[in-house]
Amino acid sequence: MGAFENVKDDERLAPDVYHQGPDTLQISRSKLHQKIRAKVLQRMKEKLGDELGVILLQGGGPFHIHSTDMEGCFRQEGYFHYMFGVEEEDFYGAVLRSGHSILFMPRLPPEHAVWMGPIAGTEAVRQKYAVDAVHYVDEMAKVLKQLEAPALHLLCGINSDSGRPALEASFEGIDSFSVEREALFPIMADCRAVKTPEEIEVMRYANQVASSAHVEVMRKCRPGLMEYALEAVFLKDCYLLGGCRHAPYTPICASGPNGAVLHYGHAAAANNRQIQDKDMMLMDMGCEYYAYDSDITCSFPANGRFTDNQRGVYESVLAAHQAVLEAMRPGVKWPDMHLLAERALLGGLKAAGFVRGDVGEMLDKRLGAVFMPHGLGHLLGIDTHDVGGYLAGLPPRSTLPGLRSLRTARVLEAGMVITVEPGCYFNEFTMRPALQDPALAHLLVSERIEALMGTGGVRLEDDVVVTPDGCESLTNVPRAVAEVEAVMAGGEWPDTALSEQMSA
Amino acid sequence: MGAFENVKDDERLAPDVYHQGPDTLQISRSKLHQKIRAKVLQRMKEKLGDELGVILLQGGGPFHIHSTDMEGCFRQEGYFHYMFGVEEEDFYGAVLRSGHSILFMPRLPPEHAVWMGPIAGTEAVRQKYAVDAVHYVDEMAKVLKQLEAPALHLLCGINSDSGRPALEASFEGIDSFSVEREALFPIMADCRAVKTPEEIEVMRYANQVASSAHVEVMRKCRPGLMEYALEAVFLKDCYLLGGCRHAPYTPICASGPNGAVLHYGHAAAANNRQIQDKDMMLMDMGCEYYAYDSDITCSFPANGRFTDNQRGVYESVLAAHQAVLEAMRPGVKWPDMHLLAERALLGGLKAAGFVRGDVGEMLDKRLGAVFMPHGLGHLLGIDTHDVGGYLAGLPPRSTLPGLRSLRTARVLEAGMVITVEPGCYFNEFTMRPALQDPALAHLLVSERIEALMGTGGVRLEDDVVVTPDGCESLTNVPRAVAEVEAVMAGGEWPDTALSEQMSA
Ligand SMILES: [Mn+2]
Ligand SMILES: [Mn+2]
Repeated sequence: MGAFENVKDDERLAPDVYHQGPDTLQISRSKLHQKIRAKVLQRMKEKLGDELGVILLQGGGPFHIHSTDMEGCFRQEGYFHYMFGVEEEDFYGAVLRSGHSILFMPRLPPEHAVWMGPIAGTEAVRQKYAVDAVHYVDEMAKVLKQLEAPALHLLCGINSDSGRPALEASFEGIDSFSVEREALFPIMADCRAVKTPEEIEVMRYANQVASSAHVEVMRKCRPGLMEYALEAVFLKDCYLLGGCRHAPYTPICASGPNGAVLHYGHAAAANNRQIQDKDMMLMDMGCEYYAYDSDITCSFPANGRFTDNQRGVYESVLAAHQAVLEAMRPGVKWPDMHLLAERALLGGLKAAGFVRGDVGEMLDKRLGAVFMPHGLGHLLGIDTHDVGGYLAGLPPRSTLPGLRSLRTARVLEAGMVITVEPGCYFNEFTMRPALQDPALAHLLVSERIEALMGTGGVRLEDDVVVTPDGCESLTNVPRAVAEVEAVMAGGEWPDTALSEQMSA
Repeated sequence: MGAFENVKDDERLAPDVYHQGPDTLQISRSKLHQKIRAKVLQRMKEKLGDELGVILLQGGGPFHIHSTDMEGCFRQEGYFHYMFGVEEEDFYGAVLRSGHSILFMPRLPPEHAVWMGPIAGTEAVRQKYAVDAVHYVDEMAKVLKQLEAPALHLLCGINSDSGRPALEASFEGIDSFSVEREALFPIMADCRAVKTPEEIEVMRYANQVASSAHVEVMRKCRPGLMEYALEAVFLKDCYLLGGCRHAPYTPICASGPNGAVLHYGHAAAANNRQIQDKDMMLMDMGCEYYAYDSDITCSFPANGRFTDNQRGVYESVLAAHQAVLEAMRPGVKWPDMHLLAERALLGGLKAAGFVRGDVGEMLDKRLGAVFMPHGLGHLLGIDTHDVGGYLAGLPPRSTLPGLRSLRTARVLEAGMVITVEPGCYFNEFTMRPALQDPALAHLLVSERIEALMGTGGVRLEDDVVVTPDGCESLTNVPRAVAEVEAVMAGGEWPDTALSEQMSA
């Protein structure tokens, strides 16, 4: 990273600006969160009218590691970050119908200054988070009482990916208030599904950082390395060059057969296989900046040159990827994009000789789910599997193989950010029953497929924002076979000359 | 890292060997854990005699991130790792009075194979963890019943650093067993405080990896960088070169004034200051291998050359560090080492002109705690602040400033691993009241101290094993001023020539 010439630049920034130093994105908290609070408040007003009282959220607390005194590095609860952007633990936040916003901060003991750093006063916190007032948590009941609101609106609902309940605000004295739990959760989840321009800029930055790190990983890959060496390179680049401290999810650095394990990389399959010469690599890694995520997957041959089989599979997945990016626009149903991806994937596999027969029949028989047992993509934002995928009044989850794995069945709207991540895997668990299924066997070229069993898979994942008349990928990594091979051989990225040549 | 020439080496290792590829430490789980289980069992027999039944522990479960479906990368609960070394979630483990060991593993749904990887059977798990038998958790009540043991001994106690309870085993059907909760916790905590030779070898490796990474950080440091750039370099080296995926605690990469914040680096003080030319750096960072920790602190001038003031403070801390390493041996009381460190520190500060008067008076008036408000060091092992510091029958916690911060007051025994980390800080919160205290003011050279206010501090931390006739530091980083300056100027480490010259 380049050093500041003038190291005092920081002092000229407004107190509410988040950044991580030179060459990192500067975020005006006032612009980002004031617009979000206004959006949520407007929806609450439309819903509740005169019944609207005070929106009250509770921020996250520490992540204890078992019974020890060690804590995981704090990461703010998603809904609270969305509304207030607070970096510290144990806050509460309120939005009044006037639009005024209040934060409540914990009153820290004086010795906190020795262990954790200088204790900021309420005015400094107010300026940092660009809210209208800051009080201490121990004053919360009194302050809220004085507002004489008809109700406190609390966040109460179930995350549709985890089945776990949202953090509902609770504090000493809440029993003396009238509370309402129905309105806020579906409105906030729905608001989060459609990003503001300011949110998209943050996600664009997280994509730039992770894209560059993926390119570096491609350059560093070679047989003989452990898979985790590439995880280490990726994380270091995201942090050192981009100021992105956390990965939003455990990096998946899969070589060879591990590429067929969709959530490889976890503690019991810890990216610790040694990379072999003929392996296909599948790298699903992202970063987060100001809690907003990128989520990118690249696939490439470990030794830098595709075999014919690898190319055949890869280009089938790439065809699916491109077909979806060409079709996405407001009004399109996401399950239709999933089916479009399956159609392109199976068409490519047919042309390459891995399947045979009628692609329509394959779709009807859900053969796509044998090759791609996951959904085409998911909403992305503060959560990697972002909220708002399934809500009352929106299209419900399908019951069909493949489609039922989709984390949303929504109709696309401008401002949604969604991953496009078709894949194709040769996994014993899904493929073996299909090869033995009389209804499917005639569609599969078994000797070609057997040759690929145990070789893993390919996934190509971009983060895509829906625009008023189409879509735009925020991701910028080599995708064409020629681009991948050129970058792995040490070529520049982006490679303007190669791109022009390919589009000519 | 070097690549294997013969990439099939791995297959020649016994199934219970843990390693992370070429050039990483190979750990025989059978040797490590069988000895530990025998040690705990022997102590339980001595305590309970014929009342001894079955020792039963519950392993850790997933770390959910708020209400989302994302989980932090799993890290096994410390007592369970100690006894069984299991990498997967949701296990139970039992040790019978015969010495036989049993693991109970969760029965996973078949589709686990698609998302998380191939499902190991009980025999593969038995071989991996070198136990006598493996059953499924849903068989646990039946299997335990057949043992007809007088009781299940459960882990029940409070961590003396966190105040949080240990994970006590619980399972469906436990109501029909006789349980006993008193014996196991103090015995296991005490066993963990004294390491076996096999445990020390793991900690030696974690120290080698982190020591090398600290040296690399010294070489990379320069004014203009963000503090977190050094965190990124450290974490990358530990992982890529040593196979150490996790930091045991949030790295502290403090420049200038931040060096006086003992637990700097957390989410709200996130190593994100830009390093300035005259800063002193304080880097407290460790790594873990097979869940065993290293915990090392280096301090050095950002620009590679000590000023006179920096050298005066640094060499006072180094004198305290050396005095303790020379005095540590079995039979020594840890609080006496803390006082010895204070005496050497204050003696150095007096010679350098920061304090004046009688060092004995300074000690009596607890002036040491003004400069060093934390304890001299803590037991280290699977937990960074390792268990067994305070237990019934052992010396209790002091009530005096400084000494009361010690996480143990034990008498040293061979095999204990403890950090030696004297420090000296110029922190407004502790120093300002001292300068204004009539009982202390005459001991402080106020104009010299005022000149250092806001400049942070120095800490030098080694991980030290107590040997039968002294101690041995597992840490290997430049400590003398000349060594630090030489390494920062690009010199070799270890520098044999310089070391010989200095000891001549
Ligand atoms: Mn994804
Ligand atoms: Mn320590």
